Amino acid sequence: MSTSPFIVAIDWGTSSFRLWLMSRDGTVLAEHRSHEGMSEVAERGFEPVLESHLQILEAPHNLPVVICGMAGSRQGWVEAGYIDTPADLTMIGQNATIVADAARRIIIIPGLAARTLSAPDVMRGEETQLLGAHFEMPRANRHCMPGTHSKWVSMDGATVSGFETFMTGELFAAISTKTILVHSTGGSGEVDANDPAFLTGVRDGWTRPEKTTHHLFSIRAGHLLYNHGPDENRARLSGLLIGTELAGAGVRGGEQIGLVASGELQRLYHAALSECGVNARIIDADVAVRRGLMESWHQFSNTSGDRKQA
Amino acid sequence: MSTSPFIVAIDWGTSSFRLWLMSRDGTVLAEHRSHEGMSEVAERGFEPVLESHLQILEAPHNLPVVICGMAGSRQGWVEAGYIDTPADLTMIGQNATIVADAARRIIIIPGLAARTLSAPDVMRGEETQLLGAHFEMPRANRHCMPGTHSKWVSMDGATVSGFETFMTGELFAAISTKTILVHSTGGSGEVDANDPAFLTGVRDGWTRPEKTTHHLFSIRAGHLLYNHGPDENRARLSGLLIGTELAGAGVRGGEQIGLVASGELQRLYHAALSECGVNARIIDADVAVRRGLMESWHQFSNTSGDRKQA
Repeated sequence: MSTSPFIVAIDWGTSSFRLWLMSRDGTVLAEHRSHEGMSEVAERGFEPVLESHLQILEAPHNLPVVICGMAGSRQGWVEAGYIDTPADLTMIGQNATIVADAARRIIIIPGLAARTLSAPDVMRGEETQLLGAHFEMPRANRHCMPGTHSKWVSMDGATVSGFETFMTGELFAAISTKTILVHSTGGSGEVDANDPAFLTGVRDGWTRPEKTTHHLFSIRAGHLLYNHGPDENRARLSGLLIGTELAGAGVRGGEQIGLVASGELQRLYHAALSECGVNARIIDADVAVRRGLMESWHQFSNTSGDRKQA
Repeated sequence: MSTSPFIVAIDWGTSSFRLWLMSRDGTVLAEHRSHEGMSEVAERGFEPVLESHLQILEAPHNLPVVICGMAGSRQGWVEAGYIDTPADLTMIGQNATIVADAARRIIIIPGLAARTLSAPDVMRGEETQLLGAHFEMPRANRHCMPGTHSKWVSMDGATVSGFETFMTGELFAAISTKTILVHSTGGSGEVDANDPAFLTGVRDGWTRPEKTTHHLFSIRAGHLLYNHGPDENRARLSGLLIGTELAGAGVRGGEQIGLVASGELQRLYHAALSECGVNARIIDADVAVRRGLMESWHQFSNTSGDRKQA
C-alpha cells in the first residue's frame, strides 16, 4: 500500500464537493466532503475553495488536480466542453481542459453530449464515473446511474453509444416539497426499499407509466380518504417515479446491468430493478468516480508527457 | 331578462374566490373575483370575507348563498364531506351542508370520492361544474376538466361513474419554477397553442408517456446544446405534460368528449385533443359552474321546502 500522494481527485457537483488525496495505486490517503458545490462556490471563487482544502492536506505544490462535474460547466470554473456520442471513454482525459491561470496543474474532464435533435441530452461528471465503472465491469452493455438526474447509458466496450437522463430525483424533491403532496409526504427520512408501498409504486410506474401523473394525485386522495401516513406516501411517490424511469429505460426481465450507486439510492434502485426481474450488479459510485479520475489523469499525462513529472 | 337577485353563487377554491349574484333565470347581475382563496382566508375567517362582498352588493339578508369548492374541505369553512362514485349529480344539492351558525342561509356542496383502493381519488368544486356541464351536453360520456388538478370524468347520464385526477397544472408550475428547468423556461407568458413545440410535446407525451421524465431533462439539454429559447421550452414542457395526461386518460382518435374549460387552458387542451384526433366540444367552465350552483340550489330547496321562501 502506497502512502505517497500522486493526485488530488475531485468530483465537484452543483451542490457537493468531494476530494480524495490518492496514491499511485489508488489508495485513498485523505478525503474531504463538503457542501461547497458550484452554486455556493461561484461567488467565493473556485480556486480559493480548492486551495483551502489543499492547504489543510498540506498537498505539495506540484501535485496535479483532476476535476470532474459541474465545475466544468459554463456556469462553473472553466468550461470543459462536451464530447459527442458515440464517445470513447479512453479519450476523455486527453480532451480535458487545463485551468490556464491556476498556480498548479489542474485539469477538468469534459462532459458528454447526445446531439439527437428530438431529445438531446448531456452529462457532466457521470462520464468519469462511467470510465471507472467500465474497469469494474467491462462487459456491461448498460449502466444505470441513479441521482437527481438519473442516467441510463448504453455501452459498446469502452464507448458510450448513447444515454438518456431522467429527472427522477429532482422530481421527487419538487413534488414532495413544492406541491399539494407536501401535506401527505411530510418528513425527510430515508425511504425503506422493503416497504410494500415502495414496491407497489415501482410496479405501477413500470407497468402503467402513462398513469403516473394520476397516481401522484392519488397519494393525496389516499391520505384524505384512508389516512395513509407520510412514510408510506413518500415510499409510494419514490416507487412511482423510479418505476416510471424503469419503464422509460425499457428494462426487461432477465436483463443484466451495472448499477452505479451508493447509499439509499443503491438500495432503492436495486430493490426496484429486482421487482422488475433485472439482474443488477452494484458498482459503488464513489469507487467508480475515483477510479475514473485516476484513469483520466493517466490518459491526460500519457498524451501530454506529464506522466514522468508526476 | 330578470333583474331581481335570486341566489349568490360562489366557487371558493384554494387560491381564488368567484362570486356571482344571479337572477332566477340565470342572468348574472353582478360578479366579484378575488384572490381570497381558502389559503388566504383561513386566518381572516370565511364569513367576514363573504359578508364584505355581500355588503358591497347590498345583497338582501334573506338571499341564499350556494358555495362549491375547497371552502367545503376539512381545512375550509365547514367540511361538506364526499359523495362516493357512482354519484348521481342530481343529488348533490340535497346532500349539501348547511353552515349552521351563519347569519344567513348558506349551503356548501359536497365533493365526490372514488374509493378505489389501488388509486383513490377526490374532487371538490368540479362536481358542481359537472352538474352544469351535464345540462349543457347531456349525452357526453366523458368530460375533460383541465386545471391545476385536471379531472377526467366518465358519465352515465347524470351519474359520475368514475373519474381520475392528473396533477398536470401543478406539475407544470413546480417543474418550470422549482427545478433546473427554471433556467430554460423563464418568463410567465401564456403558451401559444399553435406553437409547433407545444404540439410536438403533446404528441411525444401521448405516444411515449414512459419517456416524459426523460423528455423533461431533454428540454434543459436542448437549451444548453441548441440554445432553444424560453417560450419554445415552456411550450414543449406544457405539451409534454398535457400529452402525458391524454395518454393516461386513454383518449382515442375519433372519440367525442366535453371540454369544460376557459381561457388559456381551453385553447391548449382543444389544440392538444385535436392533435390526438379527439373531437372536443367546449363547455365554458364559468357557465358550467354557475349553472351547477343554480341547479344545486334547486335540488336543495326542492328537498328542504325552501324554494317557496326564495
